[in-house]
Amino acid sequence: MSGKYPSELTAWAYLARVAEPPCADVITLVDQVGAVDAASAIRERAVPDGHEPVLAATAARYESDRATEDLDAAAAIGARLVTRSDPEWPAWSLLALGQADTAARGGEPLALWVRGPARLDDLAAASIALIGSRAASSYGGHVTQMLASGLSGEGFAVISGGAFGIDGVAHRAVVAAGGVTAAVMACGIDRDYPAAHSALLAEIARTGAIISEYPPGTTAAKHRFLTRNRLVASLSGATVVVEAGRRSGAANTAAWARKLGRPLGAVPGPVTSATSVGCHRMIADGLAVLVSDVASAVNLVRPDGGGDIGRGRVKRTDGLSAEQLRVHDAIPGRGGVGIQEIAFAAGLEVPVVRAALARLDIDGLVENVGGQWRLATG
Amino acid sequence: MSGKYPSELTAWAYLARVAEPPCADVITLVDQVGAVDAASAIRERAVPDGHEPVLAATAARYESDRATEDLDAAAAIGARLVTRSDPEWPAWSLLALGQADTAARGGEPLALWVRGPARLDDLAAASIALIGSRAASSYGGHVTQMLASGLSGEGFAVISGGAFGIDGVAHRAVVAAGGVTAAVMACGIDRDYPAAHSALLAEIARTGAIISEYPPGTTAAKHRFLTRNRLVASLSGATVVVEAGRRSGAANTAAWARKLGRPLGAVPGPVTSATSVGCHRMIADGLAVLVSDVASAVNLVRPDGGGDIGRGRVKRTDGLSAEQLRVHDAIPGRGGVGIQEIAFAAGLEVPVVRAALARLDIDGLVENVGGQWRLATG
Repeated sequence: MSGKYPSELTAWAYLARVAEPPCADVITLVDQVGAVDAASAIRERAVPDGHEPVLAATAARYESDRATEDLDAAAAIGARLVTRSDPEWPAWSLLALGQADTAARGGEPLALWVRGPARLDDLAAASIALIGSRAASSYGGHVTQMLASGLSGEGFAVISGGAFGIDGVAHRAVVAAGGVTAAVMACGIDRDYPAAHSALLAEIARTGAIISEYPPGTTAAKHRFLTRNRLVASLSGATVVVEAGRRSGAANTAAWARKLGRPLGAVPGPVTSATSVGCHRMIADGLAVLVSDVASAVNLVRPDGGGDIGRGRVKRTDGLSAEQLRVHDAIPGRGGVGIQEIAFAAGLEVPVVRAALARLDIDGLVENVGGQWRLATG
Repeated sequence: MSGKYPSELTAWAYLARVAEPPCADVITLVDQVGAVDAASAIRERAVPDGHEPVLAATAARYESDRATEDLDAAAAIGARLVTRSDPEWPAWSLLALGQADTAARGGEPLALWVRGPARLDDLAAASIALIGSRAASSYGGHVTQMLASGLSGEGFAVISGGAFGIDGVAHRAVVAAGGVTAAVMACGIDRDYPAAHSALLAEIARTGAIISEYPPGTTAAKHRFLTRNRLVASLSGATVVVEAGRRSGAANTAAWARKLGRPLGAVPGPVTSATSVGCHRMIADGLAVLVSDVASAVNLVRPDGGGDIGRGRVKRTDGLSAEQLRVHDAIPGRGGVGIQEIAFAAGLEVPVVRAALARLDIDGLVENVGGQWRLATG
């Protein structure tokens, strides 16, 4: 563990490989004795008392001493290892992972491999995750594009999983809009997964960030997608599910957002569309807020008004009392009528009609022409 | 007030015309002295002490003594006047109107003109209102048809307003399905409004019911639509808004359902559709429950299970622990592997892998062939 990299960085790279993340036991050890001593202790199988679970967690891979190779592989593609001790570590965003129920796949990451110019703390400060079905409909693609470019225009980074479907459309729209997007991967940052996204991933790496807690070379596996999902949710200020079928991976990320206490939104769609079933269920069950446009997505993270949805323009007869409306309706569209006729048509007494007409006159809704009342023009 | 009709019925018909409904003051008087005496008192302008507001409410029309003509007009088209004293009066359903805030247009109806074989109490016992935009989209029409015929098949009467768009599609679908549908009108039951719906209204009258609290001959007016809406909501066990634009009359009926404490549902649609904006807002604001199919509509009135939505089929790897899933994923799709290889790929200790494999074997997910583990076929 010496050579061209500082020993501390080599230790982190070693630690990032010897346990399948997330591994709370290793983090606990590192937090206590530091990365260098933790790495030595694991390598020598001699951990401080009380840290024995670390031995079990690293039993399968502790001999896999590839720290320098991993750092070389990252450097070769312009990537870096960001650790819990780095200034750009998004500690506040990831804190909830440490506090969430860690029975399944909770726990903070030990370190993150990052390929691209975007800083993790900047990303975490203003980002929204757009996620959804790999098998997106054209409707889902359209809405994703609208939300992704709109959120980008509002200054948010858009985080997703780099996959086919909604993820890919979201990344692409942000790249096209000149914004910042980050793809959190279930494989190493040097792997193009899916392969068909290699050009897109290269573009994301050039302007945003490819992020992974798996060492370079790691291949995607189902359990890693589930583990990865918690990072998508925790790095984002809010998560929006654009389309999700009855059984969708997006539901797992959505569950993480809920567990972490992050706002969760879901976009409705035609009830006849299989790819909106999951979104409708989340909304119906009260798990997700209905998101219909950029404003309501922004509203998830700025509930104090930044994203207020327009409430439509006011109609001239809004705010009239029941009697005033009855009087208004009793006046024909063309020509004028007398108060008696209005009273009969409206079923109201003359004094009531007279009072209502006065108010309608003030409001500019009716006018008196030669003793006859008519609806005001314009 | 004598002749071919019982004096009581003539009195009700007179009362149904002399005040613009709803008129709580007239109902209070009728409940106290009976219809015959109430009619006489109003006609003679001599009401019991404390009932003076009745005089004001009937001042414009008390001389309009057309009871026999109204009953004749109704009889001519096979209609009847159902009053608060009739056995089929849906007292329980309408009760909430009397208790609701009556500042605007609350209040129970005094009597209802009904054209068609359906009894009001039967309708009120098992009905759902389907309402929405006059300018329905083809999507809205499709969903309305699905819900209307489905609810009809589940034994519900479908109540709507007889208008163009969602209303018309709902009525038509129920008629086509051989079910019962009722149109609550903002004009007299003898008026075909809109005129283009005359054939449809005739069909509804033949098999269901045309309902109005306005005397025969009354023309539709804006305030009557608003007043009518409260009857749609109160006669229905639940109200479902299928499509509603930013400013839709359906929102008024929806507000009545809320005010009366009746379940309110709204159908989502494409966020790109102007005719779903109102529905999305009601759902987003927590005013309406998201309704995506017949089951969730039924669920509004039978929350204890009658309308449970299917939750999708279970996947074979559901219910596995994180470690079992990691072991499962570490086994390649083709060929067999040894425990050591699995342990390395999964990042788990051999004893843990062995335990997980045992469980996966029992579940039929993996099999051991000649000491090598592979994924079970089928």
